Amino acid sequence: MSPVYATMSLSLDGYGAGPGQTEESPMGDIPGMALHRWMFETPEENTEEQARILAGGAYIMGWNMFGPVRGAWSGDWQGWWGPEPPYHAPVFVLTHHEREPLALGDTTFHFVTDGIHAALERARDAAGERPVHIAGGPATTNQYLRAGLVDELHLQIAPYLLGSGERLFEGVEPQQLELIDIRPVSLTTHVRYRVVR
Amino acid sequence: MSPVYATMSLSLDGYGAGPGQTEESPMGDIPGMALHRWMFETPEENTEEQARILAGGAYIMGWNMFGPVRGAWSGDWQGWWGPEPPYHAPVFVLTHHEREPLALGDTTFHFVTDGIHAALERARDAAGERPVHIAGGPATTNQYLRAGLVDELHLQIAPYLLGSGERLFEGVEPQQLELIDIRPVSLTTHVRYRVVR
Repeated sequence: MSPVYATMSLSLDGYGAGPGQTEESPMGDIPGMALHRWMFETPEENTEEQARILAGGAYIMGWNMFGPVRGAWSGDWQGWWGPEPPYHAPVFVLTHHEREPLALGDTTFHFVTDGIHAALERARDAAGERPVHIAGGPATTNQYLRAGLVDELHLQIAPYLLGSGERLFEGVEPQQLELIDIRPVSLTTHVRYRVVR
Repeated sequence: MSPVYATMSLSLDGYGAGPGQTEESPMGDIPGMALHRWMFETPEENTEEQARILAGGAYIMGWNMFGPVRGAWSGDWQGWWGPEPPYHAPVFVLTHHEREPLALGDTTFHFVTDGIHAALERARDAAGERPVHIAGGPATTNQYLRAGLVDELHLQIAPYLLGSGERLFEGVEPQQLELIDIRPVSLTTHVRYRVVR
């Protein structure tokens, strides 16, 4: 069965997104894209980790990660990524509002209204042997962590304290981890942990 | 002027102490001393960091770090460390209750009732050129962080999620950091950050 990886860029104080998300600010009020600078400013330093992030057989993401729409779908929101999203695989978006699948390039967004377990089952079916990636945001990743469904954490810990926002690890049960590897680069520190069963 | 280092062992989810501290459980309800196993189980792997922790010219700690006494001093509590505490330097304990200094070996505990700035001034006077260490717990370190008085963070990040307890970085303002160095060992990851002014 495909392993489940949770990937997130977060601040040293544990925030994966700032408050105040809007259509113009997908990450909320985080100054200067602090958490994701590594990805945009130093891609050549981070090819291995970028490749890993993009190697998922299927992705799961929360409603806020897909868009700033807070109520029912207005119908025309297509995600943050333009006509060629980087996933190149099925993406299962958790939502309370039904919507037809949306194909953009070779990424198809499926809108799942029956919860995290159903989304994981569909993602596993789609991923085959490849990993399923929980792509965030923090609220979604925390739901999967609380349900004990994450096998590995792949984090990028940025050298910032944000002081507020959406926190990864909120409300999880005590859990032992095992460090897989750690690699500091210019603008973040890549770190992977295995969840000890 | 002596630099100010804040030192703490914490979980990956940011807790420096568990809930439920008692005289028998200085760190609260944390299973198996999870955060401090590196110090007790693998001293030979961590000589450099241990030496750094013990090289302070003076130390500042909170009331809970000195003891489980929650009201006025009962009079005979001598700290957690027995007759030869490891500090070998003046230790300034923040408290609301006056008490005469307590000398144990060549460590003297001074009880400071007039706040964090007064404690830092006294610690700086005592430390000379050597660093002042903010030794915790989280509530005390957070007060110094909020006041912008910390120059470096020296953390040991243990591979655990605790899910509850006392959180380092609670209520701090947004702050950029700079990674100094990072060193994973068997039971924790040593990491130092400089606060960017």
